Amino acid sequence: MDPDAVARAFVEHYYRTFDTNRAALGGLYQDNSMLSFEGAKTQGAAAISEKLTGLPFQQCQHNISTIDCQPSGPAGGVLVFVSGSLQLSGEQHALKFSQVLRYRSPNI
Amino acid sequence: MDPDAVARAFVEHYYRTFDTNRAALGGLYQDNSMLSFEGAKTQGAAAISEKLTGLPFQQCQHNISTIDCQPSGPAGGVLVFVSGSLQLSGEQHALKFSQVLRYRSPNI
Repeated sequence: MDPDAVARAFVEHYYRTFDTNRAALGGLYQDNSMLSFEGAKTQGAAAISEKLTGLPFQQCQHNISTIDCQPSGPAGGVLVFVSGSLQLSGEQHALKFSQVLRYRSPNI
Repeated sequence: MDPDAVARAFVEHYYRTFDTNRAALGGLYQDNSMLSFEGAKTQGAAAISEKLTGLPFQQCQHNISTIDCQPSGPAGGVLVFVSGSLQLSGEQHALKFSQVLRYRSPNI
């Protein structure tokens, strides 16, 4: 399967989960995963899930503008760079965001 | 040495080289390196150097706003996310940019 298509499907799944069932994002991380968010680092699926569900907004809608992906190095996986906007409930203006995800299929 | 300090030194070196001697950037890439730039992928140090030196602007000045780094996975190295602005010679307004670099020290 085209790696760009896999990356796009993963990104869509990630942000759909973020916007509709944020607590389930923890299932997309592993115990050695690390999240850097606005300068703060969080390690491990459970801690990352707690961090994301504890963000100071509830309803949100991510709109993706760009997805760039490439192989992430000799250990395999795909490095995905995402940019877009984040609309928070009750806010007039959307926020710009960008995020890097390192994705590794459980099947490869 | 603190990995954040190493990443910061590398980022400063990368953009100082970009702004003062762009042709030398090729020396920071390897033959299996990949550059994704505005949706286009370029592989290998020589091709990446050619791509970067061929960009349609000459004098430029990068100003770094944020540097986030974390381990890039089991193969080692550091993943660095950089955001900032890019001032082109003769342009009134700076452009916003963000870039992801995967850095691997030759000594580790």
